[in-house]
Amino acid sequence: MKDSVIFFQLFEQESSTYTYILGDKQSGEALIIDPVAQTLERDLKLLEECSLKLKYILETHVHADHVTSSGNLRERTGAQVCVGEANGVTCADIQLADGQNLMVGNIKVTAIATPGHTSGCMCFIAGDRVFTGDTLLIRGCGRTDFQSGSSSQLFDSVRERLFCLPDDTMVYPGHDYKGFTMSTIGLEKKYNPRLNLGVGKEDFRKIMEGLNLAYPKKIDVALPANKACGLV
Amino acid sequence: MKDSVIFFQLFEQESSTYTYILGDKQSGEALIIDPVAQTLERDLKLLEECSLKLKYILETHVHADHVTSSGNLRERTGAQVCVGEANGVTCADIQLADGQNLMVGNIKVTAIATPGHTSGCMCFIAGDRVFTGDTLLIRGCGRTDFQSGSSSQLFDSVRERLFCLPDDTMVYPGHDYKGFTMSTIGLEKKYNPRLNLGVGKEDFRKIMEGLNLAYPKKIDVALPANKACGLV
Repeated sequence: MKDSVIFFQLFEQESSTYTYILGDKQSGEALIIDPVAQTLERDLKLLEECSLKLKYILETHVHADHVTSSGNLRERTGAQVCVGEANGVTCADIQLADGQNLMVGNIKVTAIATPGHTSGCMCFIAGDRVFTGDTLLIRGCGRTDFQSGSSSQLFDSVRERLFCLPDDTMVYPGHDYKGFTMSTIGLEKKYNPRLNLGVGKEDFRKIMEGLNLAYPKKIDVALPANKACGLV
Repeated sequence: MKDSVIFFQLFEQESSTYTYILGDKQSGEALIIDPVAQTLERDLKLLEECSLKLKYILETHVHADHVTSSGNLRERTGAQVCVGEANGVTCADIQLADGQNLMVGNIKVTAIATPGHTSGCMCFIAGDRVFTGDTLLIRGCGRTDFQSGSSSQLFDSVRERLFCLPDDTMVYPGHDYKGFTMSTIGLEKKYNPRLNLGVGKEDFRKIMEGLNLAYPKKIDVALPANKACGLV
């Protein structure tokens, strides 16, 4: 980590969720993306060990598979909770609009609206990294059959908002179930089986409709909890 | 990945093993560190998608917790299997000596002998990354009670061969069980509970002796398999 960015990718095993910490070495300011209740203490300890002051807590969306630690993190650090405005998460401190920038020290993070997995999904761009939540997974994508999901919207979000980024952009997803940690926009444009450039929107709709996925196990607990910043 | 290095960290869930791919963009040459039998096809596919030609297959040591895919990878790619000479793995193509350099394109990888977890352990240094196998884990280290392990040797290996690297060096371990993916030499010098600079060799010996770990579940299958490059 010889540049000015402190970067950690962290994994929560029960829900296979990736949490990210992005910090600015010079100012010591940091943000965290998609923190999980179970790993609150691990994440707080790491921030402290790295002498990082948490400024923002970002959610890519209202998660259905795990409960956020955002409310507790805010209490312990004074950081502000930031959620896309379309989610209607009233406990958030900042209702993120499409294109809104956040600064941690000299690092600029841009929130972009990418509805589809849920209607409120956002991705976050920071330099040559993009944090894609469940909008774009490595060789996959999030389901589109709950929380006002839409295969048509997800297709447009990936094609118009993500695949326009440089091919070398590093893709850091919200989950992975096969042991991948990172991809690139170039690799996903070529090899994502659902969303590569050879797949049309109608093909994608059929793929998503044909998944026959089970009812999300934790959704009935996770959604109300996450709408309250995990404080229930 | 805007520099000339292609880098992937990959996880195998059953044994919580990290596999690494390091490739040179210009030449397309690559090496893999600690590949696992279960993820052979995933790793081959990723190499192919990235147009990488596998040149070397490196093992940090003879693993007791999983079976390597090295023999199969060699068969499928023509790459050479490289294992520290102290391991006596006769199926290897290259018996690595302490300080030996391997080149993949313009990337230099230096093997250093770090006995302690096992008598044949090596770490691999490539630029500002060090691949530490089970010698140094994130806030931990490998056990020292099997395979001619030695807490005294592990202590010296970490202190004299790893902690002399620049503090910013990124530490990529052979395993992690808490969701960490990367640390730095500076963080481990400060916060590794067993090996931070405040711990003496006798303290460390007592810590390791007091662990009371169970007999390694897979050791009786894994050791003979790994001595045969996984081809049993």
